[in-house]
Amino acid sequence: MQSPPVAASPQHAKKKGILERLDAGEIVIGDGGFVIALEKRGYVKAGPWTPEAAVEHPEAVRQLHREFLRAGSNVLQTFTFYASEDKLENRGNYVADKISGQTVNEAACDIAKEVAKGEDALVAGGVSQTPTYLSGRDEAEVKAIFRQQLDVFVKKNVDFLIAEYFEHIEEAAWAVETLKESGKPVAATMCIGPEGDLHGVPPGECAVQLVKAGASIVGVNCHFDPETCLRTVKLMKEGLEAAKLKAHLMSQPLAFHTPDCGKQGFIDLPEFPFALEPRIVTRWDVQKYAREAYNLGIRYIGGCCGFEPYHIRAIAEELAPERGFLPLASEKHGSWGSDLSMHTKPWVRARARKEYWENLMPASGRPYCPSMSKPDNWGVTKGAAELMQQKEATTEQQLKELFKKQKFKSNIVA
Amino acid sequence: MQSPPVAASPQHAKKKGILERLDAGEIVIGDGGFVIALEKRGYVKAGPWTPEAAVEHPEAVRQLHREFLRAGSNVLQTFTFYASEDKLENRGNYVADKISGQTVNEAACDIAKEVAKGEDALVAGGVSQTPTYLSGRDEAEVKAIFRQQLDVFVKKNVDFLIAEYFEHIEEAAWAVETLKESGKPVAATMCIGPEGDLHGVPPGECAVQLVKAGASIVGVNCHFDPETCLRTVKLMKEGLEAAKLKAHLMSQPLAFHTPDCGKQGFIDLPEFPFALEPRIVTRWDVQKYAREAYNLGIRYIGGCCGFEPYHIRAIAEELAPERGFLPLASEKHGSWGSDLSMHTKPWVRARARKEYWENLMPASGRPYCPSMSKPDNWGVTKGAAELMQQKEATTEQQLKELFKKQKFKSNIVA
Amino acid sequence: MQSPPVAASPQHAKKKGILERLDAGEIVIGDGGFVIALEKRGYVKAGPWTPEAAVEHPEAVRQLHREFLRAGSNVLQTFTFYASEDKLENRGNYVADKISGQTVNEAACDIAKEVAKGEDALVAGGVSQTPTYLSGRDEAEVKAIFRQQLDVFVKKNVDFLIAEYFEHIEEAAWAVETLKESGKPVAATMCIGPEGDLHGVPPGECAVQLVKAGASIVGVNCHFDPETCLRTVKLMKEGLEAAKLKAHLMSQPLAFHTPDCGKQGFIDLPEFPFALEPRIVTRWDVQKYAREAYNLGIRYIGGCCGFEPYHIRAIAEELAPERGFLPLASEKHGSWGSDLSMHTKPWVRARARKEYWENLMPASGRPYCPSMSKPDNWGVTKGAAELMQQKEATTEQQLKELFKKQKFKSNIVA
Amino acid sequence: MQSPPVAASPQHAKKKGILERLDAGEIVIGDGGFVIALEKRGYVKAGPWTPEAAVEHPEAVRQLHREFLRAGSNVLQTFTFYASEDKLENRGNYVADKISGQTVNEAACDIAKEVAKGEDALVAGGVSQTPTYLSGRDEAEVKAIFRQQLDVFVKKNVDFLIAEYFEHIEEAAWAVETLKESGKPVAATMCIGPEGDLHGVPPGECAVQLVKAGASIVGVNCHFDPETCLRTVKLMKEGLEAAKLKAHLMSQPLAFHTPDCGKQGFIDLPEFPFALEPRIVTRWDVQKYAREAYNLGIRYIGGCCGFEPYHIRAIAEELAPERGFLPLASEKHGSWGSDLSMHTKPWVRARARKEYWENLMPASGRPYCPSMSKPDNWGVTKGAAELMQQKEATTEQQLKELFKKQKFKSNIVA
Repeated sequence: MQSPPVAASPQHAKKKGILERLDAGEIVIGDGGFVIALEKRGYVKAGPWTPEAAVEHPEAVRQLHREFLRAGSNVLQTFTFYASEDKLENRGNYVADKISGQTVNEAACDIAKEVAKGEDALVAGGVSQTPTYLSGRDEAEVKAIFRQQLDVFVKKNVDFLIAEYFEHIEEAAWAVETLKESGKPVAATMCIGPEGDLHGVPPGECAVQLVKAGASIVGVNCHFDPETCLRTVKLMKEGLEAAKLKAHLMSQPLAFHTPDCGKQGFIDLPEFPFALEPRIVTRWDVQKYAREAYNLGIRYIGGCCGFEPYHIRAIAEELAPERGFLPLASEKHGSWGSDLSMHTKPWVRARARKEYWENLMPASGRPYCPSMSKPDNWGVTKGAAELMQQKEATTEQQLKELFKKQKFKSNIVA
Repeated sequence: MQSPPVAASPQHAKKKGILERLDAGEIVIGDGGFVIALEKRGYVKAGPWTPEAAVEHPEAVRQLHREFLRAGSNVLQTFTFYASEDKLENRGNYVADKISGQTVNEAACDIAKEVAKGEDALVAGGVSQTPTYLSGRDEAEVKAIFRQQLDVFVKKNVDFLIAEYFEHIEEAAWAVETLKESGKPVAATMCIGPEGDLHGVPPGECAVQLVKAGASIVGVNCHFDPETCLRTVKLMKEGLEAAKLKAHLMSQPLAFHTPDCGKQGFIDLPEFPFALEPRIVTRWDVQKYAREAYNLGIRYIGGCCGFEPYHIRAIAEELAPERGFLPLASEKHGSWGSDLSMHTKPWVRARARKEYWENLMPASGRPYCPSMSKPDNWGVTKGAAELMQQKEATTEQQLKELFKKQKFKSNIVA
Repeated sequence: MQSPPVAASPQHAKKKGILERLDAGEIVIGDGGFVIALEKRGYVKAGPWTPEAAVEHPEAVRQLHREFLRAGSNVLQTFTFYASEDKLENRGNYVADKISGQTVNEAACDIAKEVAKGEDALVAGGVSQTPTYLSGRDEAEVKAIFRQQLDVFVKKNVDFLIAEYFEHIEEAAWAVETLKESGKPVAATMCIGPEGDLHGVPPGECAVQLVKAGASIVGVNCHFDPETCLRTVKLMKEGLEAAKLKAHLMSQPLAFHTPDCGKQGFIDLPEFPFALEPRIVTRWDVQKYAREAYNLGIRYIGGCCGFEPYHIRAIAEELAPERGFLPLASEKHGSWGSDLSMHTKPWVRARARKEYWENLMPASGRPYCPSMSKPDNWGVTKGAAELMQQKEATTEQQLKELFKKQKFKSNIVA
Repeated sequence: MQSPPVAASPQHAKKKGILERLDAGEIVIGDGGFVIALEKRGYVKAGPWTPEAAVEHPEAVRQLHREFLRAGSNVLQTFTFYASEDKLENRGNYVADKISGQTVNEAACDIAKEVAKGEDALVAGGVSQTPTYLSGRDEAEVKAIFRQQLDVFVKKNVDFLIAEYFEHIEEAAWAVETLKESGKPVAATMCIGPEGDLHGVPPGECAVQLVKAGASIVGVNCHFDPETCLRTVKLMKEGLEAAKLKAHLMSQPLAFHTPDCGKQGFIDLPEFPFALEPRIVTRWDVQKYAREAYNLGIRYIGGCCGFEPYHIRAIAEELAPERGFLPLASEKHGSWGSDLSMHTKPWVRARARKEYWENLMPASGRPYCPSMSKPDNWGVTKGAAELMQQKEATTEQQLKELFKKQKFKSNIVA
């Protein structure tokens, strides 16, 4: 087979917009997960997961954007996850010198635009769920919070907007409505599984509400593994068809296997967030995901937490036949391990073929560990659910008392 | 417990040398694995594993150095792995524009020195095993190859030298002898396990020969997991004691669990190099390793393939009580997950403690996969061993014939 | 805690009938799986699974009855599984000297009655699904087949009747109708999971049809592990409640873990029937099952394939507080391992307690094996489904051709 | 391939003795494990593991002998394990009506002889390690204990004698010396692994001492899986060769996988004895074992704890080509599952072949369980070792105190 040309991605005087691409049937490749990748690189704090690194260490954020671009991303999302003023304030003591949300959002836009300049990649400004919603569910207040970020995106003139990582359809719809005020195209993804949002609204209904609120692209991101995310998007697709609505489909799953997680996704797994390593998907897992996503009719295909540049490259390589070109980073990666043919040991050279990697069942190397975890079911008990409604207010005392009442999780060894 | 101060690492007008530090009983933290990390970032080709990225994409190499430095590394190794002229020539068609070894070595030195400037970190020039040794085992030729790299290291005035990743003690000793010509301190690590080098020379004897050749620091790197590497260094230590020789000990293992691999280490595992994800060690695994290494008397503690910046940070955090300070990157990482206390969900906040992470057995999330692999035993059969002697010359035909004679590996699914 | 008296089970001049017991709220303990147990003892052939041992080796059948009785069974099922004339004829070359169905059924009744004599245990005559149903689905023919066995049961005056191991509700209902002609109480269990019978009739609807056909006791047996069986019985219970019908509930699951099997249960697992060992449930698993069955309202609690005498004893021990007595075999088994207190090694003595066994996660000791299998999906493809309709007629040639078209099962190693 | 005739085992007027057979190069098949099998059937108490069932329930013991005979055993061992007077007294309160050792030993001989009558099977009287040795190590006392059992064996005229299940070579040699007083052939097996006896005497040296004490057949039984046992017998064989001694080799391993156990074998595993199910070997595992044992030169091949009749049949089937006949029980078991060709479902019929079963990796069906256990290391610590010397005297108080000092075992879930 003749390989597609490397790096033959067309560079336009004027970039085609996101909808222009999708309407033309093009595949758009998203980028990967910034907070997890930058946590491992030393720039993001697990727990708050806020993006102050855009101000504190722009070179680190810039380099990660470059890597995703090189791996084949057609969209660079501004590193503005959880960068709403209320969230940053909430986590205030974690932000050096009390950097304001506006400063973070502006810096993130500048970095993404700088990297995207002259490249075939769009910049998308992103908003995500807010503490304000959880504490009061007041529509005006919540929309005001989104509008603060939107003002920056409009000023910096990003190419389009993404509302992502929403657990409640109500808040997601408010986000879409706010972002639509800008006139820019809006994509919306929720971090839900096949069971629907945290109030039980099923995926199909969520999709319908998102489109009605103004989203041109809908789907899911984060919280579940590729396989589960695709099942959820399928339900969204069916919901839209039943409602005779049209929208492009989008999928940005975890790069972690989560066959065992509950309704809140990988957050419930006892391994979250510091022992997820054995669950990381391989590049070959990603190629299967990309193919299945494509077959399902999804055309905006990317990743979320755990997706490193090589995972994004795997999407671009799997879909190279359809797109007609390979990403730049493929110059360092023959398809299906073909460059192993240059390895020193002959039996490693023998692995330079598709059949080998496609069929390999990788061992965990951890003979004392199980294959499945018992997810934390703490959050679903009655007492916890009540506290969760007021969760920012939860006192240490309440927490302790609640704990006493709970059977402690079962795969922690005594 | 009062935490040690973050970033209180002293910055000297004149840096203390590597032996000055080790002789004073200081802990020296090494850096992590460049080729695996940069392969995932899109800049290195698995198979040849050569470091032309130092020339092609200096910003990517520079950023990785910065991250290791920030994570606590006291040594920045020049990105010159496999950068001998013979290796680069061998892999010639993979090096864009036929970049010469000298160019790569100079660029790698410049980048490392630039990042180390003004920081409490030394720059170490590194050499590794050569195709010339394998094809002829001619001492003069092999030493001439090392001398080409050494000339650059001397010209660029690196702080000290490392001979690493040697499977044969004979070649390792030649490397040490050559590097010693410079008058700079030399560290030497072999990629061997408790069974010894590929000709069966046991670790204790290897250590003795390395010290006799001039190495001030000896140990192991790569090929095996932390636990196995420590067992090997222990054998080296015992060999030195028996021979009444003195040297500092050094350990830079894989960040992959390899309880099931054979004599040639993770190369033999069917997962190498593209499906090793489930074997990646957690930060907590690394903390155990750092503590055990310290208890064993090892004072140069770092990592090799698979070690990402957060793994190096884990060494620095584990040994912060002994050193009196935390690395810069710890500002984004409370000890033992303490920053999770700022997470939104109460049950995740409950994970912000040492006992939780120390005792967790992480699940693989892969219920269809085994915990152990059957390592490729191809290389140890007679026919293969013969071919291995001439391995650069192996024809496809020979390879095929050899294959026919071998039972094919058992965890590949039909 | 004071233990219940051992062997204090009341022995009556006249035994209470099955409905008398269940109507009074008593717990009735069934027996275990004869064909699997006797296959391991050397008297039954896997494949045909026919019970000619009742004639050929009565002492072996008698001993197994004795063991179940001693373990606590209140019901001895005649060893007449698959003992219909059509089945035995079908498997004719496997039955030494062409033993007739009548001979087998009579011998099986005699053995069970002999063992039950003077004991607090009832004898139940059993019928199961027939080749005649599969080949033609002719009601009169199928009922005639059942009537042949029923004639023996009436002549031998068994205490009640069980129609078990039916994959199609239609045939099961015919069996119940036939058995009811005798005037004896009829229990009916299907070998289905939560997805329902092989034509997709859901469990709730199956239960309704069984009760309408005349069954006083309904439930499931075989094909799935205890947990799955209980979910299925729960659906049956809900179906009956919705239909305002009353019946006693019964459960006789596998003693194998089958979290990964498809609609046809453990038959689909690649390990069936000769490599199921790692899936065997422990006595502690059975105690959990017995408790959950009881809590669900099931009062006829037994086992099927894989249940050995010690598994039945575990049911009797778990429910001893409710029943007020322990089975005879408990004289050799302290509750929760308490007799280990007499073991030679002190650390084994330390295991003589409930908390130990209740919380232990047993390792497989098989580090090269996965935890889940990929069930054979051969049967559900179109081509296979068609052949299955005529399955007794399937020629070797057809089989081979079908095979060529199928991707071969995935956990068979090449 | 033409199958060997079933049940063609020759029946002699006068049986050939054990040495006559072995000297002629015949394969002798042993029987399986009585205490574990009868515990599951409800007649033996785990903990004491004493054989009073020979008196209390002779029909159960008789039936198990019959099954092993039918499966191919050429030796019926009297059910006299742990039937020394001191052991029975020690466990006195467990023996109904204070049955004496003499009564048990006589009953066991009678049962075995009755079953063996007219069959091609020898009866072997067996002794095993004693509490008397552990409490005082007085040679005269220990030999007196063995002599009590020997008197019965001589009176009942068993065919030969077996000293089995010894952890200390000293006691084993005393047993052999005592048994030799009878003039009958003596076989001796120790329950040790490659590390040797509990005082560290290596297997090769143990074998030498056993032969010097008078044993004609030496080997291992119990405590370790087949693979480990074969490694141990190999060391014994090498020890004998080095000492220029001759003896027949014998192997009767566990039917449990124990890759993870310590020096004391499966006793140390946390699953012992009530959760070993997932470790049970398949019949195919046994066929591999039988072949490897044969290739190693072992000619007395049997099993110990966990070996059920179908496991013994697997030995006889694997070695049928060498022996020229199949056991009786093979009439119910086609080689390599060939009888599955009569199964109802076509895809199960497709499993009727050697390649299928030989290559299958059976799943555990337990996704929450690890593949390896952390063996109880309690026994090897200093404090425990001291207590172990006086272990029958260990008070509950001492036990508790010892426990407090120990890190509790790691795969018990809190």
